[in-house]
Amino acid sequence: MIERTICFVSDRTGLTAETLGHSLLAQFGGQHTRTVTMPFISSHKDAQGVVMRINEIALRDGARPIVLSTLVDDDIRAVVRQANAFFLDFFDACLAPLEAELGRQSAHVAGHGVKELGADPAHSERIDATNFALANDDGAGQRDYRSADVILIGVSRSGKTPTSLYMALQYGIRTANVPLLEEDFEQRALPKDLRPHRAKVFGLTISPERLQQIRDERRPGSRYASLAQVEFETRNALDLMNRNQIPHIDVSESSVEEIASRILDRMKLERHIRA
Amino acid sequence: MIERTICFVSDRTGLTAETLGHSLLAQFGGQHTRTVTMPFISSHKDAQGVVMRINEIALRDGARPIVLSTLVDDDIRAVVRQANAFFLDFFDACLAPLEAELGRQSAHVAGHGVKELGADPAHSERIDATNFALANDDGAGQRDYRSADVILIGVSRSGKTPTSLYMALQYGIRTANVPLLEEDFEQRALPKDLRPHRAKVFGLTISPERLQQIRDERRPGSRYASLAQVEFETRNALDLMNRNQIPHIDVSESSVEEIASRILDRMKLERHIRA
Repeated sequence: MIERTICFVSDRTGLTAETLGHSLLAQFGGQHTRTVTMPFISSHKDAQGVVMRINEIALRDGARPIVLSTLVDDDIRAVVRQANAFFLDFFDACLAPLEAELGRQSAHVAGHGVKELGADPAHSERIDATNFALANDDGAGQRDYRSADVILIGVSRSGKTPTSLYMALQYGIRTANVPLLEEDFEQRALPKDLRPHRAKVFGLTISPERLQQIRDERRPGSRYASLAQVEFETRNALDLMNRNQIPHIDVSESSVEEIASRILDRMKLERHIRA
Repeated sequence: MIERTICFVSDRTGLTAETLGHSLLAQFGGQHTRTVTMPFISSHKDAQGVVMRINEIALRDGARPIVLSTLVDDDIRAVVRQANAFFLDFFDACLAPLEAELGRQSAHVAGHGVKELGADPAHSERIDATNFALANDDGAGQRDYRSADVILIGVSRSGKTPTSLYMALQYGIRTANVPLLEEDFEQRALPKDLRPHRAKVFGLTISPERLQQIRDERRPGSRYASLAQVEFETRNALDLMNRNQIPHIDVSESSVEEIASRILDRMKLERHIRA
């Protein structure tokens, strides 16, 4: 455990600094609890405010904070650097080697700043894809499988909806999702209206233990959450996917973004939004 | 424009490498079109596959690719480094200065790898928050405002739903959202069931031009998308927020994550999921 306050400073949302920062700090043992994010630091005045806040933290802690930043503008970085802190800018640390390799100077302008996870004109693609996911959720509503980039199948509570929404918000990918039901298991076949779109179908599988845990939180003690039921469904879902040669992954231990990223990779999907 | 292929290589999803990488490359002019992401490179064999792919690209391009990576494991990085490419690992580049500052060695183990945007045990918090957002969307359904962390208000198509979902997926924050309707404008007051929760209410405002554009894409030529209507609604929404001292931001030019990040900042919301 590092007993110093970590400050993430960014000219945008700060997500990149936080993500890379936490990973770096994890290498020094454990999770760090005292973190402060200072986002949208885009003016001289903002930067001076940051210096004041950091200096106050240093005084309070009796140890200089660790500042991890993604600040593109040289002037703003220079102001923040005056604070009583250890200062590491991810952007700055990596720019020099790239300049050497490419044999030219970089622009060093904030307008070309760290575009945090697609903070760019792709806004409407993202919104469209989100609306698509909501309109084609759970095998209901539009069922516009023709327009879908990918169609997720799986048993109830296998994570289809959050994954669909994440794929929309993060990548602008149109994802429909369809639950696998008892009648599908009896037929050991894809739901009828999915069959013409088989090439787009991707399966989410989950361990019975994990599924039971999830369902039990939702409907404690129900038949829906019983081990017999989840075992029946997970076994039949896997059988159906294998029999119909539907690619699938086990999501029991995975986070939403890991699931999304693996689906993109396996289905060779084009991101509609750049990172 | 850089005429070389960019390869993002990661032991996880690759989102961090892509985000920081695109921002760095933007400093050298324009968007880069030839990028390849190689995620989930976690074994020796995976790494050897990466080397082969990179070498093929180098041969095809007649120029060595630029590899930007977040690889925690020293051995895997050593294998990838053998490829015919310029190699910059974000993780590696930043570890040494941190080690010096903290006066200790880091673990250099992949188990503590780059946790891309919360790929961590907070999975169920995220799912719960997503379900909450879906169940409390558009002033309908549960209306469980007591359990909400924040309640978004705004006119139809001001971005409430995608923002709510993003806040859930990214931060595990429970966001309800409620549209502002004609009757609210007449009363110049918050919808009745929101009044006890006023401290949690946050407004999204939007320019009439942008709103018209969004609505017109959805229902071309409708009264709903007419300039008169969007001007009426945006003016009244802003008036209502000001009159009731509801903090608000203009979302006309903002991406979903920027909106979410600003709301967190303004409302001093605790992230339930670390980045």
